[in-house]
Amino acid sequence: MSGLLEFSISDDPIAQQLRAELAAVEAIFDRQLASDMPAVNGLCRHVERYRGKMLRPTLVLLCGLASGRRRIDQGHRVVAAVAEMIHMATLVHDDVLDDAQVRRRGATVNQLRGNEVAVMLGDYLISNAFHLCSTIGDPSINLALGEITNTLCEGELVQLHHRDNLSLDEATYFEIIRRKTASLVGGCCRLGARLSGADEAVSSALGAFGLSLGVAFQIQDDLLDLEGKPEVVGKSLGRDLDKGKLTLPIIVHLAEAGPDARLEALELIERRESEGLLQRLVDSGAIDAARSRAVSLVNDAKMQLAVLVDGPARDLLQAMAEAVVDRDH
Amino acid sequence: MSGLLEFSISDDPIAQQLRAELAAVEAIFDRQLASDMPAVNGLCRHVERYRGKMLRPTLVLLCGLASGRRRIDQGHRVVAAVAEMIHMATLVHDDVLDDAQVRRRGATVNQLRGNEVAVMLGDYLISNAFHLCSTIGDPSINLALGEITNTLCEGELVQLHHRDNLSLDEATYFEIIRRKTASLVGGCCRLGARLSGADEAVSSALGAFGLSLGVAFQIQDDLLDLEGKPEVVGKSLGRDLDKGKLTLPIIVHLAEAGPDARLEALELIERRESEGLLQRLVDSGAIDAARSRAVSLVNDAKMQLAVLVDGPARDLLQAMAEAVVDRDH
Repeated sequence: MSGLLEFSISDDPIAQQLRAELAAVEAIFDRQLASDMPAVNGLCRHVERYRGKMLRPTLVLLCGLASGRRRIDQGHRVVAAVAEMIHMATLVHDDVLDDAQVRRRGATVNQLRGNEVAVMLGDYLISNAFHLCSTIGDPSINLALGEITNTLCEGELVQLHHRDNLSLDEATYFEIIRRKTASLVGGCCRLGARLSGADEAVSSALGAFGLSLGVAFQIQDDLLDLEGKPEVVGKSLGRDLDKGKLTLPIIVHLAEAGPDARLEALELIERRESEGLLQRLVDSGAIDAARSRAVSLVNDAKMQLAVLVDGPARDLLQAMAEAVVDRDH
Repeated sequence: MSGLLEFSISDDPIAQQLRAELAAVEAIFDRQLASDMPAVNGLCRHVERYRGKMLRPTLVLLCGLASGRRRIDQGHRVVAAVAEMIHMATLVHDDVLDDAQVRRRGATVNQLRGNEVAVMLGDYLISNAFHLCSTIGDPSINLALGEITNTLCEGELVQLHHRDNLSLDEATYFEIIRRKTASLVGGCCRLGARLSGADEAVSSALGAFGLSLGVAFQIQDDLLDLEGKPEVVGKSLGRDLDKGKLTLPIIVHLAEAGPDARLEALELIERRESEGLLQRLVDSGAIDAARSRAVSLVNDAKMQLAVLVDGPARDLLQAMAEAVVDRDH
């Protein structure tokens, strides 16, 4: 993902600071999951290998840095670790829902140890995320986290409800991904700002930044599931079609195709013929249309950054936003 | 379950108070789960039908009443609803783990709507439990809840780790059920007392009461899974053997049988021959031995009640403890 983690090789002082803070976040994450039961520890070591982009922790820290009157402190680091833990839990449970076998180029927990272990390990991650969040000692942060995860689960449940619904409309698709993906990304940005003592206008604007970014991120994820290369993306692909999940390019195509083309596309979907379907989505311009929506959401997100003072943290947030729709994995 | 909810038909003032408080707890529970997404609401209505004994909320309220300098307040009611919600989440996820089809005489969520919906619905219940708990505004309660659920998940993970382990020993069995069942029951008693302003000695004693009670409760549950009548118990039985979970009567029998009887029992376990196995557990006295352990744990629990002043709340706690090993469902 060119750009998204550009700071990982940069010598800028802010990049150096972010690297140090992310290492501290990882240490909090690992310490939280240490159990006195060896069987549990082995599973947690496996999940730690899922850690990749660290998008959510990075957003907590960067929004804290960009908006803050106060310095980055333990509250930011803990919220960053909590957000990553919630994200890990959704990966583990999503892989059960999607029958996925590969994640970050390794076997998924469900593939390796069975669905039952994956269900319980996901629960353990959720539980530890809330426990860790409680160590901050600020009930309003716990409340905000609970609201975010309630919304996230609602998004997943509504998505399941619409499996194999070939008349899923755009509004419902956006409602689902706003809840299941963007609520957590937006929450990371809002809480990062709030923990730095930002005023309401700044934390709201950064929350809106994250919400648009999260929706764009999910559109890009759905595009990669359709047209990505497994060896580049590093996880099982084509799961959306296999599981009867309609995503934006398909919804756009079905809405805009003539009656015959529409019927043919529906047949390809029902027969799970991913290659034939992808060709139609490309030829009809539906893939490009979905990508344009993502780019336009990234532009919406970037406009929210006007609330911030100029500086390297704002520049990095802007670069991250652009990288979200540029990435190939 | 004779006795356990005896107060449901009693005219005693304390029974009347408990009934009113439990109705308030149910209202909090239902209000918390109300979603603006209809698909989510339908699922929650299904889960509300699982509510049965209300053992955990009753313990929060009774321990609050028995130990308290302060009256029962909103904190008790919220913690009671939170405990029931966590319990419901474990039922929904356990039914996925156990492939169970019947619960409270109705279809399980996994049976009715598939494993995926059951996984996500369980997550939604966990998330809502933490969110609801955060409304109390006391970080120490959130922290205590997180510790309880971490322990609970560890118990489930260790149990899964030992599936089909025919050399599972008693110590490990007790460690598993202490974590997966008794930690929450003990937590309900301890928090109920703490919310009433009980001093450390009283809340510790009630925590120990709940811990012993929870272990006894699980032994009785495991006995019912072996020898209960489905039409009385109201849920899928024989799941432990089918899923390779060794429980106390089997562990006792394998430890005490001579070499030939032991080999024969192991063969019955591997072939999942529940009737033949049950006959041996009865004949060898292993069922009675397990029941004795449960009764002895209830006696341990009752001794902890000595810390309380005489009164109707203490009497009810004692009656509940006795009913835990008396119940046939």
